[in-house]
Amino acid sequence: MAQVVQASIGDSEFDRDTAVTLRAPGVYDADLSAGWTIIRAVNGGYLLALLGRALGEALPHSDPFTVSAHYLSASRPGPAVIRTETIRTGRTLSTGQASLVQYEDDGTETERVRVLATYGDLGALSDEVRTSARPPGIPPYEQCFGTDTAPAPFSGSSAIMDRLAVRLDPATVGWAVGAPSGKGETRGWFGLADGRDPDPLALLLAVDALPPTSFDLGLKGWTPTVELTVHVRSRPAPGPLRVAITTRNLAGGFLEEDAEIWDSRDRLVAQSRQLAKAPL
Amino acid sequence: MAQVVQASIGDSEFDRDTAVTLRAPGVYDADLSAGWTIIRAVNGGYLLALLGRALGEALPHSDPFTVSAHYLSASRPGPAVIRTETIRTGRTLSTGQASLVQYEDDGTETERVRVLATYGDLGALSDEVRTSARPPGIPPYEQCFGTDTAPAPFSGSSAIMDRLAVRLDPATVGWAVGAPSGKGETRGWFGLADGRDPDPLALLLAVDALPPTSFDLGLKGWTPTVELTVHVRSRPAPGPLRVAITTRNLAGGFLEEDAEIWDSRDRLVAQSRQLAKAPL
Repeated sequence: MAQVVQASIGDSEFDRDTAVTLRAPGVYDADLSAGWTIIRAVNGGYLLALLGRALGEALPHSDPFTVSAHYLSASRPGPAVIRTETIRTGRTLSTGQASLVQYEDDGTETERVRVLATYGDLGALSDEVRTSARPPGIPPYEQCFGTDTAPAPFSGSSAIMDRLAVRLDPATVGWAVGAPSGKGETRGWFGLADGRDPDPLALLLAVDALPPTSFDLGLKGWTPTVELTVHVRSRPAPGPLRVAITTRNLAGGFLEEDAEIWDSRDRLVAQSRQLAKAPL
Repeated sequence: MAQVVQASIGDSEFDRDTAVTLRAPGVYDADLSAGWTIIRAVNGGYLLALLGRALGEALPHSDPFTVSAHYLSASRPGPAVIRTETIRTGRTLSTGQASLVQYEDDGTETERVRVLATYGDLGALSDEVRTSARPPGIPPYEQCFGTDTAPAPFSGSSAIMDRLAVRLDPATVGWAVGAPSGKGETRGWFGLADGRDPDPLALLLAVDALPPTSFDLGLKGWTPTVELTVHVRSRPAPGPLRVAITTRNLAGGFLEEDAEIWDSRDRLVAQSRQLAKAPL
């Protein structure tokens, strides 16, 4: 059997599908790949990673530190344009804004996502770590469920699942067999299917790439993201990530999803919170 | 003794000091009051409330749902201009952007804060509440410490403390007597000194108006906010608020502060997370 060459950072599905091409100062062409859709929706974390790449190229600092995205209208696979603006540049931090737009057949422009983000150099951070949070208790990878080992609960495209190597904590997927825990939690191991190691942009994807906690709350249907803010706190080490997502405030037709991403060194490398609409 | 007339929503220090005046479509004049400074810094929550007021006037929907602010440079008491942009308007949600700028003597404009925010109508939310989070355990108001009952640890202006009725959980103010708990927590009761009831804009202030958790971690010095995102989930009921702030990821010279605000009905009315620079 031929040896599979593992993808690497810079040469992988994720890199190709989040690539941007400069077309004018601060303006980038992109192509939203159908490979990162779930049901018919282009995944919000994939969009965030794409915008994050454009901002990393536009700003003097290349690593996202804190990224805030407001999702305005549903993106569709196909061409897109990202317009960036540099708001301020400092010695250690820069801040920028980016808009992802798409065009109708008649040329009408519609904004899909707008992002405000502050960037820096993760490699320049001090080594001092006083994190009091502890990694989530997730069973070993082999004991967790992948899409190849559990029934597919979705109709329509789950193309993104082919791009990811996700294994879910069995305690958080009771919904797949009609027995949601009711706790509003999703936990699992996260990697990219082609074996590419994580980097800061992959973290922007990973915070929004697991099944929604609403399933674990016994809700059916989608929970579209209204806004998502991610803090990237460290360059992740090579190897699989652990993602733990929690919802504690399902109320008034909305819910928050808090995600933590832990790397193979047991570092809390990213934290995010999104506001999403609960299923009707 | 003359009866003190309690301030009300719309007629209070907070309303006067966060007032904006329309000067051109989407452009507002404001005055950053010196009354909301701590040491020499204009409080970030006060700035967020001011920007929140401008956006509420500019957008078709008047209640903040999710507000993301990136703090770019230090604001100073005095005149400011807020420029708003309406990004999208929908039936239940609208999104806008706002920039707060100030001018040097030579006319140079400097942007202080940029905000992306999605607004809606909190009064239109469903009544269904499935919040699994529980209110923080804070001792009764009378057993908590106010600035009038505890030593003032700060040099320089603490003008904002005169505007607030804050009482801190004794378990979280050991730092004031040289004995920080090391847990990175701040909890307390929050109100406005003139008795004005809370409203959604006051929640934007309240998430950033308690002492920083860094004090409880034994750190000295300030923790300037880089970015702050607030979710407003319900109009708060009249009466005092309870605020609980936690830091779990002090690392690499930065820290996050997660705040929850609970109202007198035990509703989790707001959640926020900020990224701040740890003291040097």
